[in-house]
Amino acid sequence: MPEGSLKSNLDLVNECDCFPYIQVSPSAYLSAVSTLYHLRCSTHAQPEVTLGYLLPSVALTLQNIPGWEVSSSDADPRTITLVHGEDEPSRSAIVAATTSAMKATGHFKVLEKWRNELYPVVSPDRTLLFSIERSASPLFGIVSHGVHMTCYTRSKQADGKDDYKIWVARRARSKQTYGGMLDNAVAGGTATGEVFFESIIRESAEEASLSPDLVRTKAKPCGTVSYFYIRDRRAGGETGLMQPEVQFLYDLELDDSVVPKPSDDEVEGFFLWSIEEVQESMRRGEWKPNCAIVMLDWLVRHGILTAENEPKYSEIVSRIHRRLEFPSL
Amino acid sequence: MPEGSLKSNLDLVNECDCFPYIQVSPSAYLSAVSTLYHLRCSTHAQPEVTLGYLLPSVALTLQNIPGWEVSSSDADPRTITLVHGEDEPSRSAIVAATTSAMKATGHFKVLEKWRNELYPVVSPDRTLLFSIERSASPLFGIVSHGVHMTCYTRSKQADGKDDYKIWVARRARSKQTYGGMLDNAVAGGTATGEVFFESIIRESAEEASLSPDLVRTKAKPCGTVSYFYIRDRRAGGETGLMQPEVQFLYDLELDDSVVPKPSDDEVEGFFLWSIEEVQESMRRGEWKPNCAIVMLDWLVRHGILTAENEPKYSEIVSRIHRRLEFPSL
Repeated sequence: MPEGSLKSNLDLVNECDCFPYIQVSPSAYLSAVSTLYHLRCSTHAQPEVTLGYLLPSVALTLQNIPGWEVSSSDADPRTITLVHGEDEPSRSAIVAATTSAMKATGHFKVLEKWRNELYPVVSPDRTLLFSIERSASPLFGIVSHGVHMTCYTRSKQADGKDDYKIWVARRARSKQTYGGMLDNAVAGGTATGEVFFESIIRESAEEASLSPDLVRTKAKPCGTVSYFYIRDRRAGGETGLMQPEVQFLYDLELDDSVVPKPSDDEVEGFFLWSIEEVQESMRRGEWKPNCAIVMLDWLVRHGILTAENEPKYSEIVSRIHRRLEFPSL
Repeated sequence: MPEGSLKSNLDLVNECDCFPYIQVSPSAYLSAVSTLYHLRCSTHAQPEVTLGYLLPSVALTLQNIPGWEVSSSDADPRTITLVHGEDEPSRSAIVAATTSAMKATGHFKVLEKWRNELYPVVSPDRTLLFSIERSASPLFGIVSHGVHMTCYTRSKQADGKDDYKIWVARRARSKQTYGGMLDNAVAGGTATGEVFFESIIRESAEEASLSPDLVRTKAKPCGTVSYFYIRDRRAGGETGLMQPEVQFLYDLELDDSVVPKPSDDEVEGFFLWSIEEVQESMRRGEWKPNCAIVMLDWLVRHGILTAENEPKYSEIVSRIHRRLEFPSL
């Protein structure tokens, strides 16, 4: 592969955190936002809070759907507001009817992968406003939440430094989203009401055949990454949909005796790679974009990426912990 | 101390990262920024980039100083521009003459603690534009850089979990800035041209009597924290000055045999505290504000603060890794 096509660490960040920053690129930000519809909910204490961004092509399909009010296209900002439903269950019922109607039209490709899994949409004080079908969340541009765990082994080198190897998962090539790309050992979305730590325990068993006891005792929470992703072709379905995300991170240091194994057909296999192999595969662009971000955070926390070997060190650290403009958990 | 006066972790973040966010509080941000002067430099490739914010009371004193151009107060934005100096040394010479003249007036209290230490001001591509005397940096509102290291011991509990104790420094009560408050074991500002890792090695010897060999082999870089601080009374000198900062972080796990010791009169003493003692002292507000932020990052990275025990977990993580609107290293 020619040198020119290798990705820098900042390239990897730019692919995942691609929505412009108002404080750095005000004109790019304002021109992006001025075309988008702001999702709001008028039946709670802070009706002026924006919960996500919708493309006009999505917002305009909601114009005649009961429960919603769409502002005229010259409003500033353009808004789409959930105006009915006095409490969470009634709001969630309206949203469920809406997403089902959207699916029935066959108009939205992302809804063909209907998940029957509900994602939470919260107010700034983290109260659940309503839930929404997972596959519809990028259509509404709301913050989605998930868990990612890095599994690794550690031994001491002759000079006393830690020598790490990382368990890397390769996604099944048949998978519609990011098929064949590299992934963190365990990762998954977190549904309404789910406790993050329980979510990582469940996913660890489902995806990597790791025992719940092992994960409960040994998995260490170690922060979050957050970024504002805009979906591309590899995500499947419509491109250009907004997907701001917060991922809750865990580290799991494993003995040589523990080997993650696929337990469904989502993962092709697990490989124990050196840091150099991991970084080379990142440079070659083999990682699912948000999983590369999780790896970058791991490499920073474990002293492998440093201010001395990565010129964009502090920019990378701040970019992968983006403060999103929408409420989240 | 009454329950009501204890500080939450988010309170600690709010005390250190106090400049408003445009994406969350646009009106608070815009009203703050509209009163400030934007520091610029017209003699490099990106003259439109703002390098820091000055209070009007500071900017207006530069009106008749050679090398500077101050826009009229109804300009949008108000600017103060370094218009002379075709290269770094000549710009730095103008800035040095300016800060010396400011000191000579006796008008600025922060300049009474003149440090004879130069801080870098960089362009977006991290090229050094000019250096500025450390004590003057908050007058110009530029990003300052530093290093902080957390020293700790680790032993295994009966249940296999890590039991940490943290070396906490108490600042000398006689110190004008944050006297008597708690501090990270090692911390210091990084001067123009200094390598961050060398900076932490030097400070470790100066402040905690830790051997350079030990720090060079065992100190582990583990990320940055960044925040936008507004100076209060405890910082000494004028209040309301803007101090955006990036701190490069290191962890140093110590054996029981190594004991940090003060080697100057800046530190009253070092204390090996349990996590509970550290967290209680944080709640009581005993920590220097930015050192509390460094501790929060440590507590997150080591799995002590979690999504389950800290409701504001993801907000705290993103807030302490703020993407600043000014260029930095």
